[in-house]
Amino acid sequence: MLELDALTQGKPVAIVGAGLVGAGWALVFARAGLTVRIYDSNPVISSASLPLIEQQIADLTAYGLLSEPGESILARLTVCQTLAQAVDGAAYVQESILERTDVKRALMLELDALAGPDLIIGSSTSGIPASAFASGLSISARVIIAHPVNPPYLVPVVEIVPSPETSPAVVEFTAALMEAVGQSVVHVRKEVAGFVLNRLQAVLLREAWALVEDGVASCEDIDKTVRDGLGWRWSFMGPFETIDLNAVGGVADYAQRLGPLYRSIADSRSHEREWSPELIKQIESQRREFLKHDDLESRRGWRDRALMAFSAQRRKADPR
Amino acid sequence: MLELDALTQGKPVAIVGAGLVGAGWALVFARAGLTVRIYDSNPVISSASLPLIEQQIADLTAYGLLSEPGESILARLTVCQTLAQAVDGAAYVQESILERTDVKRALMLELDALAGPDLIIGSSTSGIPASAFASGLSISARVIIAHPVNPPYLVPVVEIVPSPETSPAVVEFTAALMEAVGQSVVHVRKEVAGFVLNRLQAVLLREAWALVEDGVASCEDIDKTVRDGLGWRWSFMGPFETIDLNAVGGVADYAQRLGPLYRSIADSRSHEREWSPELIKQIESQRREFLKHDDLESRRGWRDRALMAFSAQRRKADPR
Repeated sequence: MLELDALTQGKPVAIVGAGLVGAGWALVFARAGLTVRIYDSNPVISSASLPLIEQQIADLTAYGLLSEPGESILARLTVCQTLAQAVDGAAYVQESILERTDVKRALMLELDALAGPDLIIGSSTSGIPASAFASGLSISARVIIAHPVNPPYLVPVVEIVPSPETSPAVVEFTAALMEAVGQSVVHVRKEVAGFVLNRLQAVLLREAWALVEDGVASCEDIDKTVRDGLGWRWSFMGPFETIDLNAVGGVADYAQRLGPLYRSIADSRSHEREWSPELIKQIESQRREFLKHDDLESRRGWRDRALMAFSAQRRKADPR
Repeated sequence: MLELDALTQGKPVAIVGAGLVGAGWALVFARAGLTVRIYDSNPVISSASLPLIEQQIADLTAYGLLSEPGESILARLTVCQTLAQAVDGAAYVQESILERTDVKRALMLELDALAGPDLIIGSSTSGIPASAFASGLSISARVIIAHPVNPPYLVPVVEIVPSPETSPAVVEFTAALMEAVGQSVVHVRKEVAGFVLNRLQAVLLREAWALVEDGVASCEDIDKTVRDGLGWRWSFMGPFETIDLNAVGGVADYAQRLGPLYRSIADSRSHEREWSPELIKQIESQRREFLKHDDLESRRGWRDRALMAFSAQRRKADPR
């Protein structure tokens, strides 16, 4: 808390956009001890946000993932009726509104008019670079991407992506704030499409889809390859540490041995194809054999409980 | 055990090649209740195999991962002095010798002379298709790839890859045997380079290396992206189930929304570059900041303990 207080100087944090991602962020900040103001321009979403967070707190409590009573965390959350109320005197805004450049630009214009000279604004966008919606304003140097994995109160990674206009001090503040509230900060140093996380996911998914299309393996068998194989290591080591430990001489030794094979695999996919409507239909039908469309929602609950169990285990083991 | 007995008709299993992979397989089969004969043409490796397995059994016992006393498992293992002794009357051979086509071909010629008419031979190779070393023999229809992740007694996935000559009955037997000893079977239906597991790993690693080369992120930040983000889901769901749950309408909905972005990411890497000596040096030096060369071995111990803790947790939670 001392570190957090020093960072925010006791000021609150504002959540703008209170859907699933925004509500998740509100919980991250409140759990860490910060005062959190929530605003959503849609009153339906706005009024649903506290009950949603209350449910999430109950789940976390059940898995032993909170260090204080849920009510104390809830007491630090307030829903505001206007954007001005939410950001007034705040140290930091986490923006999680609609993923559309024009909608985000409009919010930045509003914030430009409202914000004090020190307010820092993080955006949850998973794909739009800050330079596309926050350039040429007096706040531009204080806008940065802070892209979470959903839900952020369970999965700690956050990608910090400055635009060319973002000041180094803002990068430093946002990274320090995220670390202080318990997230794991990844610095993305250039505005590339998909940042790092979705680029890694993208190439793996492209190969997975191509393997199904070529009749090499089924969706379910590819899922097994990851969840009963590759994913075990990747859940506590990254890909570089994995290969560093997988050759006697470490990563350079590994690169010499397997680099050529891996290049030939990558080369074999150099002509990218569309995911055709037929292929989408094929993958959809394979998935529906394992999970009916009507069961998607309940399976999402299963996933969140599994993440909670995983999170509880990781905290206990802390293998690093 | 009933199922296993029906499969093997009470016959033993032979391990040929008793290094790290072979010893791991010996433990998988003995743990499941089978009688296991071990052979390695190198007497040094041969005599080191039982003490190695004894150590692994002690580790598994410490993590509560064995359902019977370690001595009972050890009692089912015998080291043989000749290949003929090892395979005589065996139901199945798991081959884990040197990863060289000529060496594997020589072993197949020996086995062709020794094997009874029902012996089935699985190879642990991670990259050489069975057609490259087992074609044109009387045993050809009974040779198949059964590629594990190391160590197989901890990470359950096994890729089953028939050659064009492998008979469907042999595919069926090997898959049933692997399931019966507790492995998770992935059917690879065509002999493609890298099978499924290493193809998925290859494309993710290529992108990771390119991101470092382009100055987008450091090795450590890319590792964080996976171990504190993507890897959490992938440790209990595969990539298809992950995206199926990540869009309101399921996987087809997801494909429509994110397919174009993912294609553009893949397209941006269509000109594959070498991993140059300079890039290898750069990655090596980044890794050595986090792990000194002399600490590689002790860190492998850390990894194996983390895998055991993970395995114990997965068995307890069994989220499926």
